[in-house]
Amino acid sequence: MVNIKLVVVGKLKEQFHKDACNEYLKRLSRYAKVSIFEVEDEKIKDNSSYKEDLMVLDKEGKRILKQVKENDYVILLDLHGVEESSEKFAKRLDMLIGGNSSNITFVIGGSLGLSQEVITRSNFRLKLSPMTFTHQMTRIIILEQIYRAFKINGNENYHK
Amino acid sequence: MVNIKLVVVGKLKEQFHKDACNEYLKRLSRYAKVSIFEVEDEKIKDNSSYKEDLMVLDKEGKRILKQVKENDYVILLDLHGVEESSEKFAKRLDMLIGGNSSNITFVIGGSLGLSQEVITRSNFRLKLSPMTFTHQMTRIIILEQIYRAFKINGNENYHK
Repeated sequence: MVNIKLVVVGKLKEQFHKDACNEYLKRLSRYAKVSIFEVEDEKIKDNSSYKEDLMVLDKEGKRILKQVKENDYVILLDLHGVEESSEKFAKRLDMLIGGNSSNITFVIGGSLGLSQEVITRSNFRLKLSPMTFTHQMTRIIILEQIYRAFKINGNENYHK
Repeated sequence: MVNIKLVVVGKLKEQFHKDACNEYLKRLSRYAKVSIFEVEDEKIKDNSSYKEDLMVLDKEGKRILKQVKENDYVILLDLHGVEESSEKFAKRLDMLIGGNSSNITFVIGGSLGLSQEVITRSNFRLKLSPMTFTHQMTRIIILEQIYRAFKINGNENYHK
């Protein structure tokens, strides 16, 4: 069974996000072994300097990379990435799984984004939207897209 | 206070979606009067014909249009619409509110999308992503974007 890992910065705060996340993990369990690694987020000052922001990104980035194994295929959720339709994303996952990338790791950064080190390590940068979503919501959205991808690839009905 | 209306096809099924929706309605209440009008969705057969699908869209579309007033500025959530950043979307809302469009109506279609009649009535078609989201999640996402827009327009901090 394919291993899918989500490495995320910060915890889910709202109960409804936790419930949504758990629901999609349950649905996904038929198709893949999905696990979530939450790494600690840094406190961000309201009027932080550019240098302070870079330090936050660096610290969070190092924590992210600790969770990434050498052979992982790393997909970043990234506002500067490439957009694709659910169908194209499904095909991408299908090819990765068929091509023996049995460890697919999605990375969702914190409020400030991702460090250069994490960007350099990544294999693909996926943009969900030109809109900024909360990183909590991004977690739910990508889980739903992964679930949708398995449904599309299995030619299963999916009406919601 | 500006009136924002969401006209949506179908009900939220999951409790976590209802909770998320209520949370954003609560947060938005500081900025606008936001109300949600749920119109009934049609049952879709698994192997429905093109003609049957058009009939579904037509029926749902007529129910949507019943909730739309003559002076409403209608924004469709539409996979064939235009994408924009959260900042640009915030500016759009700000201009609409400043320009006396005191009734802004967002429309989220059902599983099959929107009828031509609804598309023709609309003033702007907004695409969140090339990915297909569930219409339940679309509701939460647009509420969060509207909330984010008020935060952006008021120069308020928003770190999540």
